[in-house]
Amino acid sequence: MTGPLHTAAELAERFALRLQGDGATRVEGVGTLARAGSGQLAFLANPKYRAQLAESQASVVVMREDDAAGYTGTALIARDPYAAFAKISALFEPKPAREPGVHASAVIDPSATVDPTAYVGPFVSIGARSRVDAGAIVGAGCIIGDDCVVGAGAELISRVTLVTRVRLGQRVVIHPGAVLGAAGFGLAMEAGRWLNVPQLGGVVIGDDCEIGANTCIDRGAIEDTVLEEDVRLDNLIQIGHNVVIGAHTAIAGCAAVAGSARIGRYCLIGGAAGVVGHLEICDKVVVTAMSLVTSSIREPGEYSSGTPLMDNRSWRKNAARFKQLDALARRIGRGE
Amino acid sequence: MTGPLHTAAELAERFALRLQGDGATRVEGVGTLARAGSGQLAFLANPKYRAQLAESQASVVVMREDDAAGYTGTALIARDPYAAFAKISALFEPKPAREPGVHASAVIDPSATVDPTAYVGPFVSIGARSRVDAGAIVGAGCIIGDDCVVGAGAELISRVTLVTRVRLGQRVVIHPGAVLGAAGFGLAMEAGRWLNVPQLGGVVIGDDCEIGANTCIDRGAIEDTVLEEDVRLDNLIQIGHNVVIGAHTAIAGCAAVAGSARIGRYCLIGGAAGVVGHLEICDKVVVTAMSLVTSSIREPGEYSSGTPLMDNRSWRKNAARFKQLDALARRIGRGE
Amino acid sequence: MTGPLHTAAELAERFALRLQGDGATRVEGVGTLARAGSGQLAFLANPKYRAQLAESQASVVVMREDDAAGYTGTALIARDPYAAFAKISALFEPKPAREPGVHASAVIDPSATVDPTAYVGPFVSIGARSRVDAGAIVGAGCIIGDDCVVGAGAELISRVTLVTRVRLGQRVVIHPGAVLGAAGFGLAMEAGRWLNVPQLGGVVIGDDCEIGANTCIDRGAIEDTVLEEDVRLDNLIQIGHNVVIGAHTAIAGCAAVAGSARIGRYCLIGGAAGVVGHLEICDKVVVTAMSLVTSSIREPGEYSSGTPLMDNRSWRKNAARFKQLDALARRIGRGE
Repeated sequence: MTGPLHTAAELAERFALRLQGDGATRVEGVGTLARAGSGQLAFLANPKYRAQLAESQASVVVMREDDAAGYTGTALIARDPYAAFAKISALFEPKPAREPGVHASAVIDPSATVDPTAYVGPFVSIGARSRVDAGAIVGAGCIIGDDCVVGAGAELISRVTLVTRVRLGQRVVIHPGAVLGAAGFGLAMEAGRWLNVPQLGGVVIGDDCEIGANTCIDRGAIEDTVLEEDVRLDNLIQIGHNVVIGAHTAIAGCAAVAGSARIGRYCLIGGAAGVVGHLEICDKVVVTAMSLVTSSIREPGEYSSGTPLMDNRSWRKNAARFKQLDALARRIGRGE
Repeated sequence: MTGPLHTAAELAERFALRLQGDGATRVEGVGTLARAGSGQLAFLANPKYRAQLAESQASVVVMREDDAAGYTGTALIARDPYAAFAKISALFEPKPAREPGVHASAVIDPSATVDPTAYVGPFVSIGARSRVDAGAIVGAGCIIGDDCVVGAGAELISRVTLVTRVRLGQRVVIHPGAVLGAAGFGLAMEAGRWLNVPQLGGVVIGDDCEIGANTCIDRGAIEDTVLEEDVRLDNLIQIGHNVVIGAHTAIAGCAAVAGSARIGRYCLIGGAAGVVGHLEICDKVVVTAMSLVTSSIREPGEYSSGTPLMDNRSWRKNAARFKQLDALARRIGRGE
Repeated sequence: MTGPLHTAAELAERFALRLQGDGATRVEGVGTLARAGSGQLAFLANPKYRAQLAESQASVVVMREDDAAGYTGTALIARDPYAAFAKISALFEPKPAREPGVHASAVIDPSATVDPTAYVGPFVSIGARSRVDAGAIVGAGCIIGDDCVVGAGAELISRVTLVTRVRLGQRVVIHPGAVLGAAGFGLAMEAGRWLNVPQLGGVVIGDDCEIGANTCIDRGAIEDTVLEEDVRLDNLIQIGHNVVIGAHTAIAGCAAVAGSARIGRYCLIGGAAGVVGHLEICDKVVVTAMSLVTSSIREPGEYSSGTPLMDNRSWRKNAARFKQLDALARRIGRGE
């Protein structure tokens, strides 16, 4: 990546980092420690990559104090080099040009309001009584139904669907293909046929949340489905109706949270993990990838389920024994 | 939620429920037992919530005969309070206004037919020889390819894709982002490269089915992929080519059914569960969340796989032993 | 399926197959061995279906030499009947008519280029500096952002999103709802809040790859996310940022590959399988359905995790014992 030109000294000042070496060193892009070349800035955060430092061709490297001892190149010293790098590299991120205004092809209900500083792209449809606030971006192909709010500075990259009664806070970012506010999966059986339970609630997304591509968040049955502020959802995640997710929780791709589950603050839910409905997970819980949470978790900590990967032949033998586990246990005197 | 005004007596008559208490009690919305206020109707189905009844501020509560004994408020007595509530709450569901007709921006092949009582929204594209029947709704951004049928009263909420040869029955509901009729994953290896096996079949969806957001149902290789009537699929589900799903079966979010599997009637497949291809599951089978079905199931009942969630430290110790399970079993005299 | 008319002799010559029986036999469609009728061609590849051969009403059957001994109908003899069938059945695949040119409703940035032999459908948006090469098809509702390339002969069926910096090789096929080039899930925690790590890389898709419906491939953080040539991804798959997938690898539906994982060539990853980030899988590895790969795999072969499906009552008993597995093992003298 190459972009606008900066100097090491300027970056140090701007991001409150200590400069070690030549402040005039030019930075016009970023790279990995292993592959960055002249004019590029890299970072060293994970000690695993320390050996790469000596050979790195990066012009400037962001690193911790102790990694910088003896480093002869130009360094920017940070307590958290990854966070510092994140902020610096934002300078080089190309952003599509989007002038405020509504594209001629957009179809907007007369009762909807779009702030004049917002951008509404081609092939966007906005329903009755919906509102797009100041500075918001509604990218191409987004479909916004009735009674929705897109908060100030929010960005719907493109092709996002807000079905109905979806209220997004400020600076919320939603990636393409995400569907918020679809009717939750509420069914009652009557006389041998399914009866739909109307889903009358909405979806409330707190400020600074980010929702990944093709992720689904259903609207509530009676009350709302809620994400508190700064929740981060990766791609292809399913959030059932009436789920509540606490602030600053992050969930990795392909996870599924069933209806009415409550997840605390500062939790980390691993990829393809599952959370059964109507249970509670307290704050600061880590669930590892592909684990299934089947009852409430009341203590912070890391939780897992599943079995280790094995060559298929060994796995078959051991897995077959899993069926005998209770009998085996009884035999050796436990559980009798 | 507030909506049109009804009285308890009127609701009792309309839904054939027994009224206990003041028939003149006004109902203008619904709520949960815990949070409903004046003018709202709630329900009590799960005995777990019985304690909430005494404190509920709901004006009317739908409940079973035996829960109503001693209840001094206004009650509607139902054999199945949840089903009765579902029907009552439908009175309060806001529906987007959709006048019959085709939006000016829609692009419709001259050989396609759209019934004059149907609604076709903005940015819809309809391909050759496709048909939209009476009263159907094709929401904004739907893409319908060639040779498709949208049955009478069916509703494609918005941004649904029917790729080709997809025939929807009457009153089918499809949520945004769903893709029906994409080419199934049929591959043959020849000379070290993949060769596509053409997917010449279609998809047939029976009357009253509902398909969740971002769910995919591939078209068949030679014959069709089939959902019988009243099948309910949640969000983000994958249905492979030539799968057949029996009437009244419901599948929860993120489940995956591989090609040519046959699932019976009245089955319940849990969230993120998997069904391997080319096998059969008989009627009335329940598969719990995240379980994997690897061979045919011939007896009704509930089935599971997986291991319980544990704190990570305990899990690591136990999971490591899973690798020794066969050796352990041999050692204690089983399997020798 | 019925289509254009061919004869057995003509098919034999065209696909270099040996003809046994009447070369004048007419073929105007294909079918399964069990259900094909007069005028239809079927195939026998899996020995499991051999018994169906005697009763098949198919006019022509593609089969192996040894299955053809004693067969009195018309046969086409192939070393690989499935591959031969794939090629023959392509003759009968209906293709939507798509004349080269750009639909009047498409919105194309002045700096983008579209080859005059390419097709661009209705409601397509193409961003700055993007390029659509000769013979490519960009179906209805596709959203292509800035700096993307759609290679010659590539086909975006419909409603595909290329967010930014996505370069597709020649003849790449992408199914509806797929999202390529969304920002990867890169987060740093600072002062109790998430900080986005800009995702400055792109996505590079090799020639002849195919990407399933609603599948997501995130763009890289600094370098690119890469699929080498002839990689096949099914539906609803998540590919994290900076993943590299080797040529000819196929991944089944609902699988998830976390960031920076490297998967070799000629691998087969089963449905709903997971691959943890920052690890390597060598060439020719098979991972079975719903298995989780948590460390690098350095030997070709088949790998699995998980437990067998059981009736729920037995499963509960055995699963409870899993929690005691380490204690049990210690008790019987292993691990002490």
